[in-house]
Amino acid sequence: MQSRAGQLKRAGRTIAFVPTMGFLHEGHLSLMRIGRERADTLVASIFVNPTQFAPGEDFEAYPRDMQRDLAMARSVGVDIVFTPDDTMMYAQGFQTYVSLEELPRGLCGQSRPIFFRGVATVVAKLFNIVGPDIAVFGEKDFQQLAVIRRMVKDLNFGIEIVGGPTVREADGLAMSSRNAYLRPEERPAALSLHDALRQSQAMVRAGERRADAIIAAAERHIASFAVNTIDYIAIADPDTLEDMASVDRPARMALAVKVGATRLIDNMALGR
Amino acid sequence: MQSRAGQLKRAGRTIAFVPTMGFLHEGHLSLMRIGRERADTLVASIFVNPTQFAPGEDFEAYPRDMQRDLAMARSVGVDIVFTPDDTMMYAQGFQTYVSLEELPRGLCGQSRPIFFRGVATVVAKLFNIVGPDIAVFGEKDFQQLAVIRRMVKDLNFGIEIVGGPTVREADGLAMSSRNAYLRPEERPAALSLHDALRQSQAMVRAGERRADAIIAAAERHIASFAVNTIDYIAIADPDTLEDMASVDRPARMALAVKVGATRLIDNMALGR
Repeated sequence: MQSRAGQLKRAGRTIAFVPTMGFLHEGHLSLMRIGRERADTLVASIFVNPTQFAPGEDFEAYPRDMQRDLAMARSVGVDIVFTPDDTMMYAQGFQTYVSLEELPRGLCGQSRPIFFRGVATVVAKLFNIVGPDIAVFGEKDFQQLAVIRRMVKDLNFGIEIVGGPTVREADGLAMSSRNAYLRPEERPAALSLHDALRQSQAMVRAGERRADAIIAAAERHIASFAVNTIDYIAIADPDTLEDMASVDRPARMALAVKVGATRLIDNMALGR
Repeated sequence: MQSRAGQLKRAGRTIAFVPTMGFLHEGHLSLMRIGRERADTLVASIFVNPTQFAPGEDFEAYPRDMQRDLAMARSVGVDIVFTPDDTMMYAQGFQTYVSLEELPRGLCGQSRPIFFRGVATVVAKLFNIVGPDIAVFGEKDFQQLAVIRRMVKDLNFGIEIVGGPTVREADGLAMSSRNAYLRPEERPAALSLHDALRQSQAMVRAGERRADAIIAAAERHIASFAVNTIDYIAIADPDTLEDMASVDRPARMALAVKVGATRLIDNMALGR
């Protein structure tokens, strides 16, 4: 992949890159379509990255379907799918990590303390291998997008990072490979994430500015489903991800909820 | 620099890179000569990197002489000297670091715990900016060379790392910008590092294999100068830098000594 990318660059071709963990859905395809429009060559990667899963998380169970993924990638014009394996990405003696000091602290970093180190490290590796001019990440993983933007700036990757809007099912559920874990009877509880975000937007439109009041209302709604366990609900600055007390400027509301055994995340802009 | 490097690559030119902290001496020039032979374009950087100095170390005092450095670089055929400043390299909100888990633990990492994180981070940044095909580092900073090799492999930089032999003064003192700190009366004590290494090589050639006996003899010699304070003397595996008990295969002897107020390091191959 690295030598192929070098050839492409020497031939003057630009590269767009969409890294994924596979089990593709419409959300991934929307990112690939953005990439397709922005460069000569479109590269996607499929790699379930072990270093971003903690023991006890769902690394082994994470859904995989390479043949279906390759067909879907082809259908949206991906030129190259890069599918490394674990031993190639993490050779004997591997010990180098990319980590950020502040952005990973809150939100998902609270319950997944090694997650963003794993993400930043594997994305740095993939960037070095694929050598893209632009890379596309979903806004659904909002903290991840902020981490990647900061890493690219801090380490001078010289890659344009593009955020792609969250794609939702008809009922509002944010698309995620982990939705495959949901049992049919858990669906109403899963929808409470999106409903709480919409309700929060409506409160802000109606003049509410107090973050604690908005969060409390979201909490009440989500907790009304017995199967739900709230990990966090936050209203944060979109760049620094620091908690905001008042929605007096553009803010991002983000939440993580365990619906039965399935951890879901979602987020939405507030106040603009 | 980054956009210039992109142009060079699109034009099919290869880039060799020698990162330095300036105050150049014959050791740096020898690395530049190696780079000059190995690529079409030779880039050197001069940047005294603040993140690899701890509070109380010599960041402010570190010797600087840009005009002299530029003339010396020109004299050995450097095409581009990259001279960023602190605020450009570490913008507001900087928070991303590259760190290694094991290689930085011993040797210089013991007394300089943040040093290798600072080195790995700035070298990763410089690699992304300069985009070299090969980069040349001095064997004088042996642990640094091992850290950079491992980082390049782990993060897939796709850059060939070349180690350049240590260049010495006529009396054996390893060249270092910090030699400028030495007072004339400290010179004999400073030479004890090289003498101890040569003495250790002779012991191994004479059949001694016990690392502790070799280290004890080196210690006695260096400590015979009252102005010296030994930081460490180690015999280590050249790749993992782990301590070796017996010199029954190629080993590296490395040491760090404070000569008065000046911390010096040196190293040599043993047993081959």
